[in-house]
Amino acid sequence: MEFITSNVNVIVLATSLIGLGFAWYQRRWVLAQNPGNERMTKISGAIQKGAQAFLSREYRAVAVLVAVVTVALLALSAIPATNMSPWTALAFVSGALASGVAGYIGMYIAVRANVRTTQAASESLNQGLRVAFASGTVMSTSVVALALLGISLLFLLFTNLLSAHEAVSALAGFGFGGTSIAIFARVGGGIYTKAADVGADLVGKTEAGIPEDDHRNPATIADNVGDNVGDVAGMGSDLFESYASSIIAALTLATLGGGLAPDKTVPGQVFPLLVAAAGLLVGIWSSFLVRTKEDATQEMLLGSLRRGVYSASAGVGLVVVVLGLALDLGWGVIIATLSGLVGGVLIGFFTEYFTSDTYSPTQELAESAQGGAGIVVIRGLALGMFSTIAPVMIVVIVTLVATAATGLYGVAVAAVGMLATLGITLATDAYGPVADNAGGIAEMSRLDEAVRKRTDALDSLGNTTAATGKGFAIGSAAMTALALNAAFITALQGAGASSTVFMVDVLDSRFITGLFMGALLPFLFSALTMLAVGNAAQKIVEEVRRQFREIPGIMQGDAEPDYEACVAISTNSAIRQMILPGLLAVAVPIILAVLAIIGKDNVMGQFVGRETLIGMLVGSLLSAFMLSVMMANAGGAWDNAKKFVESGNHGGKGSEAHKAAVVGDTVGDPFKDTSGPSLNILIKLLAIVALVIAPLLAQSPLS
Amino acid sequence: MEFITSNVNVIVLATSLIGLGFAWYQRRWVLAQNPGNERMTKISGAIQKGAQAFLSREYRAVAVLVAVVTVALLALSAIPATNMSPWTALAFVSGALASGVAGYIGMYIAVRANVRTTQAASESLNQGLRVAFASGTVMSTSVVALALLGISLLFLLFTNLLSAHEAVSALAGFGFGGTSIAIFARVGGGIYTKAADVGADLVGKTEAGIPEDDHRNPATIADNVGDNVGDVAGMGSDLFESYASSIIAALTLATLGGGLAPDKTVPGQVFPLLVAAAGLLVGIWSSFLVRTKEDATQEMLLGSLRRGVYSASAGVGLVVVVLGLALDLGWGVIIATLSGLVGGVLIGFFTEYFTSDTYSPTQELAESAQGGAGIVVIRGLALGMFSTIAPVMIVVIVTLVATAATGLYGVAVAAVGMLATLGITLATDAYGPVADNAGGIAEMSRLDEAVRKRTDALDSLGNTTAATGKGFAIGSAAMTALALNAAFITALQGAGASSTVFMVDVLDSRFITGLFMGALLPFLFSALTMLAVGNAAQKIVEEVRRQFREIPGIMQGDAEPDYEACVAISTNSAIRQMILPGLLAVAVPIILAVLAIIGKDNVMGQFVGRETLIGMLVGSLLSAFMLSVMMANAGGAWDNAKKFVESGNHGGKGSEAHKAAVVGDTVGDPFKDTSGPSLNILIKLLAIVALVIAPLLAQSPLS
Repeated sequence: MEFITSNVNVIVLATSLIGLGFAWYQRRWVLAQNPGNERMTKISGAIQKGAQAFLSREYRAVAVLVAVVTVALLALSAIPATNMSPWTALAFVSGALASGVAGYIGMYIAVRANVRTTQAASESLNQGLRVAFASGTVMSTSVVALALLGISLLFLLFTNLLSAHEAVSALAGFGFGGTSIAIFARVGGGIYTKAADVGADLVGKTEAGIPEDDHRNPATIADNVGDNVGDVAGMGSDLFESYASSIIAALTLATLGGGLAPDKTVPGQVFPLLVAAAGLLVGIWSSFLVRTKEDATQEMLLGSLRRGVYSASAGVGLVVVVLGLALDLGWGVIIATLSGLVGGVLIGFFTEYFTSDTYSPTQELAESAQGGAGIVVIRGLALGMFSTIAPVMIVVIVTLVATAATGLYGVAVAAVGMLATLGITLATDAYGPVADNAGGIAEMSRLDEAVRKRTDALDSLGNTTAATGKGFAIGSAAMTALALNAAFITALQGAGASSTVFMVDVLDSRFITGLFMGALLPFLFSALTMLAVGNAAQKIVEEVRRQFREIPGIMQGDAEPDYEACVAISTNSAIRQMILPGLLAVAVPIILAVLAIIGKDNVMGQFVGRETLIGMLVGSLLSAFMLSVMMANAGGAWDNAKKFVESGNHGGKGSEAHKAAVVGDTVGDPFKDTSGPSLNILIKLLAIVALVIAPLLAQSPLS
Repeated sequence: MEFITSNVNVIVLATSLIGLGFAWYQRRWVLAQNPGNERMTKISGAIQKGAQAFLSREYRAVAVLVAVVTVALLALSAIPATNMSPWTALAFVSGALASGVAGYIGMYIAVRANVRTTQAASESLNQGLRVAFASGTVMSTSVVALALLGISLLFLLFTNLLSAHEAVSALAGFGFGGTSIAIFARVGGGIYTKAADVGADLVGKTEAGIPEDDHRNPATIADNVGDNVGDVAGMGSDLFESYASSIIAALTLATLGGGLAPDKTVPGQVFPLLVAAAGLLVGIWSSFLVRTKEDATQEMLLGSLRRGVYSASAGVGLVVVVLGLALDLGWGVIIATLSGLVGGVLIGFFTEYFTSDTYSPTQELAESAQGGAGIVVIRGLALGMFSTIAPVMIVVIVTLVATAATGLYGVAVAAVGMLATLGITLATDAYGPVADNAGGIAEMSRLDEAVRKRTDALDSLGNTTAATGKGFAIGSAAMTALALNAAFITALQGAGASSTVFMVDVLDSRFITGLFMGALLPFLFSALTMLAVGNAAQKIVEEVRRQFREIPGIMQGDAEPDYEACVAISTNSAIRQMILPGLLAVAVPIILAVLAIIGKDNVMGQFVGRETLIGMLVGSLLSAFMLSVMMANAGGAWDNAKKFVESGNHGGKGSEAHKAAVVGDTVGDPFKDTSGPSLNILIKLLAIVALVIAPLLAQSPLS
């Protein structure tokens, strides 16, 4: 154990290289598959081009912000009074780079795997599943491996150069960099994908009466691009960040003493790194368990994915117990980590319960569609609101258990435990958009009905895993943000503080108003992102109507629609409209911190202080968590309720109930794929920005 | 001044009797008006009967709860260790009684004024306005006068019998009694009104294509009953409670020392009582300013109501300055009170901005209806979310200013200041449903087009004042709940405590998880109330469809529909479904308090404590405030966007845009009239229950 402890960074480094090697191997395998006929490759090529173009424009826009923040961090660290290390800037750039690369890899493989999945599905269902899932593992393993690589390299470097306190402080920059990319990726990608989706549906399905993904719909390529830039690249950057931040929070709390005994600092640092490394290996192993028989039913398909996830959870659980005992951390740490692991699985289960049409909530939602669009929207909102009970109470119980077991450090390792299986859970999630695209390509290429049926089966499975994945993303984001907040507030005491506890008068008006402003932020943020989708979708609608009107023969299939026009509109709208919400998230904690510093010794301090910032962090976490769960679950339930009606219930396709269900689904689209997921990053970003600037605020005296 | 200070209770008592006298005078005047022809009185009679029947069933159901709680309070006070006074039980019963009577009076006059307004409108617009507004003043003056009467009588009694500390503690029971009635009145009335409204619209307008309030629609009487039991009686009990609780919170904080100098205790108690009493007199005076010319435009109508409200605000402002100086409380208290007064006016203004079709938000919402139901719902939700910025930032600024000016006591007097003009603001609000009913009666009685046009003008004005009133109700509820929380947390220190400050470790897992559970509660509560509306509406839909099918000649107007069947369904559904959400609100703080007491000296205390309860109060306040504003404003904007389309924009009645706008309005109905307003009471109820049981918890040591 001695050897492991002193070489932990090298071990984690080596593991992350194994992960990258596996991802490379899987990538080669996927690319070696048959990409299908000429029409298929042409369509896939258009999707690739669109996705590539969007991501490069997005990254160029974000690069400006990264450059500005890097310079600002360097400038701050040049002022001795700030206590900030110049290495924070390096960590920031590394985090931004790694997050961007993780998203890019996911997108790269997804836009190539989609057409290969279509072709494989024309051979057999199992073959289709294998290709789509393999592409998912490319992204998931890359995300996990890149996070571990970055953290272990930087931690190795910093612990050799800086004091332990400074090292973890600088490391927070890595999470900040990752989140800065993630917020724009999620918001920009989310606006893109839903503007195209809603726009395509509104004119295509509703007005022109042509099926989804029909090649005559000018917005269909943009819709498919959207799946890749939003659901794949955005999701990748998002979970990269949760994963990295949970480890950083655990390292910070272990170092600053968040409930661990003083002699447990080093094992406390080693533990989360090794759990994460083991999780990566377990994820690779369990990904081989995902396969199915030729004549598999939907149940069997889901079973095969579940087998992978549950095996990975069991494997990680075992590792946690062994490591906890070997490092002599005691059962407290083990229990805390396991509570997070179990909590993550439970959140996944309850998300499925509320959003899958095999359970009563979504079935009843589908039934209510007979009462019209108004009723289905009311009931869907109520379902989403009610469903918050499960993840909230799970997070409450995990937090209470973890803290009672081993203090604040317990919250951080609970988050690490929840995210340790990311290598496989993210793969099942990233699989969804690939299967969705595969179906789209089959439809557009007018392939055989049998192929479309297989891709439909794969797609439908993807919807379930996507909903579960979203629940998991939200739950883990809440735990991570909580751990980051704990790390921030602990760090506020400064090096060598006698106590790590920040006492606040609960009626301190700065704290209370901070809470109010924090609770407000997710509402504003969601309003902006939903309006962005509405605006962009409206532009798509106008363009599609224009093409139907002005391009003769388009509806007869004689003329090719101008797909690129819709791609360009989505790209431009998404890039332009991601700026304001993204900046809001970065700017608010910084502004509050600056005001707290300015008001330190004067009358302004009565109105704003560190209490305001802390209140804001807590308030935003609360309201973002609620809204995010509500939006994700309502959106998932509406989507599946619509599919349930389409599969012949309550009148089936074309009935009044179907029209009502489509309205529900339209409302749910920005809920579940734009605003909801973006809130996850909002709370992490607020928390990590605070953690990065904690050295500045530690100066400001308790008031 | 000496004389006034020592006789404050008598002065307030006298003022409240003047208020009741004025209400009696106005009632006589309204009842002396012509109730119209036989058909009109028949319809009005059916509405009266339905409203009466509902209210008596509601009160009988709630009486059980009141009896149980009274016995529980008496039992608790029999245990010496609880420190609870038996007089709390008396205060509780008085509060329940006063709140119930206030709601009853409002309903009583509204169901009689509706038909008289119709008749008066057949004479002239000004006459219609006068009758409807006079009935509003009956309720508003009764509400204010009953609250002042109860508080001054009890305070006079308690201060003679008990120590100052015990007196204010027992007085909290009055607020508790009021809120217990209010929660059921708002939830039950809210379910009733919206089930009937949505149900009537879905079949009548959408399926059968007959206009709103058409006499052939079997649900139309139930719809009109709903306006009276929900929007009048529910609103009356709600604001009765805010009003009483804000004064109780101010009395409590003045007594316990919430920022006031020790020698200012008595003036600190006298001040809120006198401000409220002066507000009542100013309200009566300013109600005489509400009148209009014969050929008044919509602008002029609104102007006449505004003249009343603004004059009252100016009058109260003047009184605040004079009283503050006369009582030698200093400018701090004056500034705090004025900040609340101004904040209330501003919240009203911004609510109007976001929900009236004379401003761009609602106009743009109406425009987006051309994009279909999905888009209009998305944009309405975004509008509602965005609109939270105004009331939240106003409450934040008022809180910061009031606290900086004079500590926690400042928060309470800010709430008193905000509510001091209730005598007139509530009248403009209660006027709305009367005008709405008057229009319905005109339509059902097939009166002249000209009459209907005048009642339409009055109704449309009522929609604007209703939206403003809702914003005001939410803002004042948030301020009141904040003041009650401050009173509760201050009271936790127990009598003779050296400090009134409750310090908490912001990372204490009990506090954090309390916040999470608190934030969850309004989501569950809203889900339950929205589902209740959905369920009840569906039953109405089925009944109306059945009658259209089974009663021959109904659509030709040859046969009378069975109105009473729909009234019975609404009544039964509302009564049955109000129980669970109502009990939830009463039970949660009690359960947490009991757990905190049980866990005092053992391991359970690690998981639940007073910190959990405090966290729950704060968390629920945050999330309820956001949700409530969002729901009220989204609902108001959808309603007015629909009306904007109906008045000929974007295709007018019957167009696709109109259908989409109707969907938005349907979603908005339970938002703005059931779930949203109920949340106001939820947070006040949670806070006042905590305040009542504070003596028990003051025993439990700081942990």
